[in-house]
Amino acid sequence: MNAQTCIRKLRYVCSTSMGTVDAHGNPQVRIINIMHVEPEKGEIYFVTARGKNFYRELQNGKEVAITALTRYQEMIRVNGIPERVPDTRQKKWLDRIFEENQIMNNVYPGNSRYVLEVFCVKKAVIEYFNLGVHPIFRERYTIGEEAKRGGGFMVTEACIGCGKCLQACPQGCILEKIPVEIKEENCLHCGLCSEVCPVQAIKRIEEE
Amino acid sequence: MNAQTCIRKLRYVCSTSMGTVDAHGNPQVRIINIMHVEPEKGEIYFVTARGKNFYRELQNGKEVAITALTRYQEMIRVNGIPERVPDTRQKKWLDRIFEENQIMNNVYPGNSRYVLEVFCVKKAVIEYFNLGVHPIFRERYTIGEEAKRGGGFMVTEACIGCGKCLQACPQGCILEKIPVEIKEENCLHCGLCSEVCPVQAIKRIEEE
Repeated sequence: MNAQTCIRKLRYVCSTSMGTVDAHGNPQVRIINIMHVEPEKGEIYFVTARGKNFYRELQNGKEVAITALTRYQEMIRVNGIPERVPDTRQKKWLDRIFEENQIMNNVYPGNSRYVLEVFCVKKAVIEYFNLGVHPIFRERYTIGEEAKRGGGFMVTEACIGCGKCLQACPQGCILEKIPVEIKEENCLHCGLCSEVCPVQAIKRIEEE
Repeated sequence: MNAQTCIRKLRYVCSTSMGTVDAHGNPQVRIINIMHVEPEKGEIYFVTARGKNFYRELQNGKEVAITALTRYQEMIRVNGIPERVPDTRQKKWLDRIFEENQIMNNVYPGNSRYVLEVFCVKKAVIEYFNLGVHPIFRERYTIGEEAKRGGGFMVTEACIGCGKCLQACPQGCILEKIPVEIKEENCLHCGLCSEVCPVQAIKRIEEE
C-alpha cells in the first residue's frame, strides 16, 4: 500500500466523509464526492458552493479530515490543509469536474455550476487502515511537505518481559523479547497492553 | 421523516462517520459503528478504546458530528455532545453491545472488550438530507434539550419581485410572490439567489 493507491481509491468508494471545524469550534461532517484526483502529484479535488457554511469552514486555516471506506473494508484517512484553486483556474477546473462527474449537472444545472468553487488538498498525512484482515493492518504516508505524525504506544527499557501484555493484546501484535516489541502496523491503539503492564513500561505516544 | 426514523436508520447503513475536534483544534473523522439505538428515547450508543485519541476527543466538551449515508442516498447528520455512560452501567452496556454486534468479538476477543467504553448522544440536532429526489429535500429535528439551529437564506422586505433569483436557483425552490419565498426544505444553501439579487434582499442566516 502507498499514498498514490490510497488517493486513487478515493474515487472508487460510494461515500467519502469530510470533517471540518465550525465557527463554534465544533466538528461538522459532510458526505461529499471527491471530484478528481492526481495520484502521482498527490492532489485531491472537491467543490462546494459559496453560500454554504462548509465554504467558510474550508477557509478558516484549519485542516480538513477526509475518511473513506472501500468495499473491501479498507479505511483511508487524509488529514491536511485545503487550498482554494486560484481564480484564474477556477472555471477550467469546474468545467472539467462537471465533465467527469455528470451527476453534478442534476444538482447544479446550466450556469448555476459557477456558484461552486474548487478546493484541493496537496499536503496531508494519509492513513491506510484495514480492519478486514487479522491482525488488522495500518500504515501512514505523507503527501506534500506535511511531516508524519505519531500515534499508538511504545515500549521503554523498563520492560521486564513478564508477558502480561502479550496475553492481553486483542490482536496478538506484541513480539516476545525483552523489551517486548509492538508491531505498529497491526496495532489497534486500544491501550490494553499499557493498562496491564505491572511496571508501566508501555507509554502512549502523544499526537504530534 | 422524523428524528426517530433518522435514529433507527443509523443502524442500517454500512458506514457511519464520526467527526471530532482534536487537541490541535483540527477535525478528525473516523468510520465507526453505531452499536445500539433507542429511537423513542432519542439515544445513540457507540464505543471506543481507552488508548485511542478518539477516546480523549470524546471528553473535550465539544460536540461530535455523526453523518451516515443510507442506500437510498439519504444523508443523516447528528450533531450533539457525547456523554460517557456511568461506571456502574459500563459492563452491562458493553456486554449487551457485544451480544448485538458479534463482529466486535473478532476485533476484541474475550475479556479484551473491557478496554472499550460506552458513550451515548442524547441531546442533538438531527438533519435529514435527501439528494436523491428533485428538488432535494431537507429537514431538521432535535432530540433532548438542544435547540434547533438555523441555516440557509432569508428574504427581506427589500425584495422587488424582479424574478432574477427564480431563474438562477438550481433547484427551482423559490416561490414567485413579493417578497419571494424560499422553500427551506428544498434549498441547497448554495447562495446563488443572494448573489444575483440586484437589491441585496436575500440574506444568509448565520449559524446559531
